[in-house]
Amino acid sequence: MKASELAKILGGTLEGDDVELAACGGLEEARKGDLSFCKDPKHVRLVETTQASAVLLPPDWTLGAPCAIIRVADPNHACMAAAKLFAPPEPERLPGVHATAIVDPSVKLGAGVHVGAYTVIEKGAEIGDGAVIEAQVFIGEGCKVGAGTHIYPQVTLREGTIVGKGCIFHCGVRLGGDGYGFNNGRREDGSVYIEKIPQLGIVEIGDGVEIGSNTTIDRARIGRTYIGPMTKIDNLVQVGHNVKVKGYSGLIAQSGIAGSTEIGYGCLIWAQAGISGHIKIADGVQVGPQAGVPQSLDGSVKYVLGAPAESMKEFGARTLLPKMVAKLKAEVKELKAKVG
Amino acid sequence: MKASELAKILGGTLEGDDVELAACGGLEEARKGDLSFCKDPKHVRLVETTQASAVLLPPDWTLGAPCAIIRVADPNHACMAAAKLFAPPEPERLPGVHATAIVDPSVKLGAGVHVGAYTVIEKGAEIGDGAVIEAQVFIGEGCKVGAGTHIYPQVTLREGTIVGKGCIFHCGVRLGGDGYGFNNGRREDGSVYIEKIPQLGIVEIGDGVEIGSNTTIDRARIGRTYIGPMTKIDNLVQVGHNVKVKGYSGLIAQSGIAGSTEIGYGCLIWAQAGISGHIKIADGVQVGPQAGVPQSLDGSVKYVLGAPAESMKEFGARTLLPKMVAKLKAEVKELKAKVG
Amino acid sequence: MKASELAKILGGTLEGDDVELAACGGLEEARKGDLSFCKDPKHVRLVETTQASAVLLPPDWTLGAPCAIIRVADPNHACMAAAKLFAPPEPERLPGVHATAIVDPSVKLGAGVHVGAYTVIEKGAEIGDGAVIEAQVFIGEGCKVGAGTHIYPQVTLREGTIVGKGCIFHCGVRLGGDGYGFNNGRREDGSVYIEKIPQLGIVEIGDGVEIGSNTTIDRARIGRTYIGPMTKIDNLVQVGHNVKVKGYSGLIAQSGIAGSTEIGYGCLIWAQAGISGHIKIADGVQVGPQAGVPQSLDGSVKYVLGAPAESMKEFGARTLLPKMVAKLKAEVKELKAKVG
Repeated sequence: MKASELAKILGGTLEGDDVELAACGGLEEARKGDLSFCKDPKHVRLVETTQASAVLLPPDWTLGAPCAIIRVADPNHACMAAAKLFAPPEPERLPGVHATAIVDPSVKLGAGVHVGAYTVIEKGAEIGDGAVIEAQVFIGEGCKVGAGTHIYPQVTLREGTIVGKGCIFHCGVRLGGDGYGFNNGRREDGSVYIEKIPQLGIVEIGDGVEIGSNTTIDRARIGRTYIGPMTKIDNLVQVGHNVKVKGYSGLIAQSGIAGSTEIGYGCLIWAQAGISGHIKIADGVQVGPQAGVPQSLDGSVKYVLGAPAESMKEFGARTLLPKMVAKLKAEVKELKAKVG
Repeated sequence: MKASELAKILGGTLEGDDVELAACGGLEEARKGDLSFCKDPKHVRLVETTQASAVLLPPDWTLGAPCAIIRVADPNHACMAAAKLFAPPEPERLPGVHATAIVDPSVKLGAGVHVGAYTVIEKGAEIGDGAVIEAQVFIGEGCKVGAGTHIYPQVTLREGTIVGKGCIFHCGVRLGGDGYGFNNGRREDGSVYIEKIPQLGIVEIGDGVEIGSNTTIDRARIGRTYIGPMTKIDNLVQVGHNVKVKGYSGLIAQSGIAGSTEIGYGCLIWAQAGISGHIKIADGVQVGPQAGVPQSLDGSVKYVLGAPAESMKEFGARTLLPKMVAKLKAEVKELKAKVG
Repeated sequence: MKASELAKILGGTLEGDDVELAACGGLEEARKGDLSFCKDPKHVRLVETTQASAVLLPPDWTLGAPCAIIRVADPNHACMAAAKLFAPPEPERLPGVHATAIVDPSVKLGAGVHVGAYTVIEKGAEIGDGAVIEAQVFIGEGCKVGAGTHIYPQVTLREGTIVGKGCIFHCGVRLGGDGYGFNNGRREDGSVYIEKIPQLGIVEIGDGVEIGSNTTIDRARIGRTYIGPMTKIDNLVQVGHNVKVKGYSGLIAQSGIAGSTEIGYGCLIWAQAGISGHIKIADGVQVGPQAGVPQSLDGSVKYVLGAPAESMKEFGARTLLPKMVAKLKAEVKELKAKVG
């Protein structure tokens, strides 16, 4: 898109060359063909060295730029608007079942459902109105998918999985795999046995849940593994069998929740954190990045860090231990000299 | 299922309304339509507040419940039996090759093999008797899959992978991807090069191995990456090239084993633990959650924790350091006051 | 292959039985049918106990072996050559589009492109000369894949993803999933809201990038998530939205880079390390296994370890704290006794 055309759409004025623009980018990352923006005088220096082809600036700045300038009242807002124009068009997923999709005759498809190429939906499944099931998805027997839910390519839902309305599942999400459960020991003759414990339950996902790429959520041993409404799960997260996430929580990338643990409302589990099995995290608690939580958290501490997890104050003190010990060592040395 | 019908099947007696039951759930998690159970007087309080529609109780308890009661001799056992009745039916995977599966004419299929929709099996592969290869699976050239092995949808086996009998691979398992191996340095002219080292080996999986969703096991640089019999691997685990897991071990979710490391018999690697490359973990050693193991473990310590991993006693002492240092600080202060 | 035949190919001489050989393996791992090698007198003991059927040894060693011996000038090099002979044949991916692939008529396919079974390529995509797109791949609208790039089965590229030349993507790679971004707070009536922030950008991958199995790279909020040339990414790695990896770097298995962070040239992020969002890692810095990096690293320290990450010296000192504290404790006790 020409800078002049964009300036018109954004209600701004162009100064400089009428360059071709194709994408947005931060001042430092931007390159030829990019539109960038600056609204904060602190970052003026970055404007001087940007590789962007054009930059959005407030009308009153006297500052120049090494590229075209589009002056607008709110550069931040204008950049978001431009980003929408530059964004790859969201692919149309029109109602209808692709000729190559294999949908069992017993499946109940709601109104306006899209089913993509090479998707398989097995018997007894129900897909709600307006749901989008993209290409190469697998939906097992008796699964229920709520209205308006969007399932991206190559997701698998094992039999019996229940999904709420308005959910978004990204590529490679795995719901309903067997939980990790084995009995083992020694037989009378001394030989070792490892026996699979049947995983007879299901996964149930509430309304408005988003699940990131390649995240895995296991079916319950009995009953259900439950992800409550509006929970937002990032990529590569592991949720064990019989976990219960009450709702309105966030699980950030590569975090893991072991079996039968309960996560309260409004919790935030940061990246790479690990929560042990069979414990409870109280409503509103945040577990910091890479933290390891071995025991229940009752909410008296709102943010924990470290492994085993402790309060930020405790974690901070632990971080400073080497300095404290070095100081003590010097003091003890001095004392010893004095005492003789 | 009606509570009365279930009571009959379980050999128990119903007290209260003949409610409709559809699932099992713990006393706390249960909701309308759920059957729960209590066998331990300690949890009586939970019975009083359960949302279950019915609860299994021992015949001799005088205790009431806010819902229907089914009295049975062994509530725990009865609940497992009920769970089997409520469980989503295990999908039938009848012998036969789906019309859309692409199986190379050279592939040897054993008796009673099931091959699902849109699965691809390339030339020279061999599938043992009674194996179940579900939909959308990829099995590369020359792979061998043992009798009775069950491969869930969207698993990929790269060329040459060998799989034993009675294995279970959950959705998204990746076997035989190239190991991570590069040579790099500077050429005579000063330019940097990064060269891929050919990964010429294979992955070999023993009998009775279960592998969780989205776990990845790389092919060997030369020779084989080997997972010994009865090893149970959880979700999102990473196993590097040329790793050897002798057998009867467990690798819990999100743990990682770097290249060329050997894991002995009967080891347990807990969630999110990391084991360095080119080391050996002795038979029967357990590596705790999030532990980092930089060096071989000879089995003199049976359970290690922390990073770098140490004994539970050492890890416990480390955890207590802040308190010890604070105490020392106070003592030194006191001494200084005395000494002057 | 017969040992005699192999000896001929490798320019060596066979001593002992003309055994059948089918694979390579280290002296300890090798079993019947394997060829092993030894070039270092240090490992002589391992030769004595190897289960290999044949072993490559230098011509001048007087040492015997419990198996056949093939004497060659350079056992290491000869073993690599043998490994190539034993390796499963690399599957032929001939130019052409499989009859079951669904390639939109608007897609531009370069010369000699291979497209495998059940692969879906949506409208407006461009695939460069000689690219290999294997079976069951999904390539979204408007994606561009460079010449010679090899995409293994069951990879997904969401709309707008741009991929350079000569890349290799292993099974289950997910590019272009929505970044993790939500606004949340309370409405005037006190109710909680969690709103998805549109993820309008793309993923762009430079030339010569290799990405391991089940790794996930999110599309930018605006602009691009960028992986620079020759970067080598291992399995199960997470790269957040708007991350910029300049190039020639390595991201080892299960590491994670949070949103908007910049990784310099020639960095190495070891396994299970985590890098916070919105920071910069200077060129050439290495982040050790399981390290957690909360702040920018300016390159003054070349290798960091621990969480929060510190220099190896600092990390080493921290590791020794329990010993130091125990010693101090003893000294303080002694002082107290003296002082009274």
